[in-house]
Amino acid sequence: MNLEPWYITGLSESEACFCVSFTQRAKLTVGIETRPSFSISLNRRDIALIKAIRAYFGCGGIRYSKSDRTFKFEVRNIADLIKVVIPHFDNYPLQGEKKADFEKFKEICKMVRANYHLSKPKLMEIIRLAYEMNPSGKRKYTHGDLLKILGVEKV
Amino acid sequence: MNLEPWYITGLSESEACFCVSFTQRAKLTVGIETRPSFSISLNRRDIALIKAIRAYFGCGGIRYSKSDRTFKFEVRNIADLIKVVIPHFDNYPLQGEKKADFEKFKEICKMVRANYHLSKPKLMEIIRLAYEMNPSGKRKYTHGDLLKILGVEKV
Repeated sequence: MNLEPWYITGLSESEACFCVSFTQRAKLTVGIETRPSFSISLNRRDIALIKAIRAYFGCGGIRYSKSDRTFKFEVRNIADLIKVVIPHFDNYPLQGEKKADFEKFKEICKMVRANYHLSKPKLMEIIRLAYEMNPSGKRKYTHGDLLKILGVEKV
Repeated sequence: MNLEPWYITGLSESEACFCVSFTQRAKLTVGIETRPSFSISLNRRDIALIKAIRAYFGCGGIRYSKSDRTFKFEVRNIADLIKVVIPHFDNYPLQGEKKADFEKFKEICKMVRANYHLSKPKLMEIIRLAYEMNPSGKRKYTHGDLLKILGVEKV
């Protein structure tokens, strides 16, 4: 199964998630780990399609979620996000409102690539951008929680 | 916004519905009305995209569903289904399991086009095929209900 680039974008319009998650990590100087990820989730009946999507991108992994019986293709490696995922959506752009999320995601990935997430003021900017994105799931922390961890008050 | 054919197929993989609904109609000789329809539903924030999908197909209509806050692009006219929608998915095929639904839908549309739904034995075949399709929503009648209306027992 060889997937067409525009097919990938069409499917992504509804099933993809551009996600930036944050986790408290005491061992990090800034105290917060930043993890951008791109994923596409499909019902388990479409395992062959998920494998074809993995083959199309040539990076990332597949895992099964028991809770919602879906297979998720996911790219977390920042180099793969920058070199493979983002160029795909630059060349074959999303056509709906999700495009705004992609643009913020792209900006955040570039900042992470430049290690901005390891300095407090830049991380605050990353967090602000991430919390402007359309929520794709329940967040562990509120924007205020993260600022508290950083030792600053929400403006 | 000019949408690419493969983009339409990719989006359809998750958001389109190939649906065949049945309604009891005393005034019809067979007692049952058969209505095939193709639809794509999107969150209301994507109204511009729904309009672009309507423009791509050049047929069908758009309506708003208050209950789930979505806009639905829908084609019900059998001539449009046969001449526009089905050729699109023949030329730019679905890649996942939804393709099986499309193939059954296509077969049913051809049968409806040939007025098979107006004769009891052929209608039974249409109903059988339709109930093999992946359920896309709650059905008003069970397969058995429809056969009862036709005055036959389920085999």
